[in-house]
Amino acid sequence: MSVVPADHLDLLERPIVASLATVRPDGTPQVNPMWFVSDGSVVRFTHTDERQKFRNLTLNPNVAISIQDPDNPYRYLEVRGVVDLITPDPEGDFYRELAVRYGRDRGTGPSDAPHRVILHVTINHATWM
Amino acid sequence: MSVVPADHLDLLERPIVASLATVRPDGTPQVNPMWFVSDGSVVRFTHTDERQKFRNLTLNPNVAISIQDPDNPYRYLEVRGVVDLITPDPEGDFYRELAVRYGRDRGTGPSDAPHRVILHVTINHATWM
Repeated sequence: MSVVPADHLDLLERPIVASLATVRPDGTPQVNPMWFVSDGSVVRFTHTDERQKFRNLTLNPNVAISIQDPDNPYRYLEVRGVVDLITPDPEGDFYRELAVRYGRDRGTGPSDAPHRVILHVTINHATWM
Repeated sequence: MSVVPADHLDLLERPIVASLATVRPDGTPQVNPMWFVSDGSVVRFTHTDERQKFRNLTLNPNVAISIQDPDNPYRYLEVRGVVDLITPDPEGDFYRELAVRYGRDRGTGPSDAPHRVILHVTINHATWM
């Protein structure tokens, strides 16, 4: 059972570039574009274990994700949750799955595959308009 | 002198619905769509003094703002900064200025004008792609 209302689930299903908010070690927010895939309860996204956003998440695993309808910027969904699972993606398989979803498949890569991880966010709250 | 590179200043000038990230009192992030206007150094947006986002900002005035190019979601600008000034907007003049900028002018309102405030964010950091 998703906390996301049925009439906004399309925003989790469509290949929209979302905005991922995290909290930095100094307590200030950060927000970046993000590819994702979701079943309505969990959001998965790709990252490497080397960058600031990953360091933020190891210290504070809470995230907020905003997804705007590209056809109507006044229609949106915000989901909040916790990164409660991180799994390795050393061949970049999940990265390429996302690249296909977003129409950016190049067949190979990424070059940083050995450092790629899959971050799993369990959604525990949603707001929408 | 803006910390935003000249070739990305258009993202601060165009009426794009931005994503505003704030930190909640419990240390978790929140991200919401936002109208804004900016001169390249300061971002101003409208809010009321009654809602969660305002309470967040009185406790932690740090914000991050992501602006995606609607014509190319892989081109974006993130600015980070601090809400260092809050001014009243009791007639809703600034709200209507933003409504005109975003093509949503209805000539009157908003109904919550007595609670409207203008939040001024001084930009101190930028990232872009």
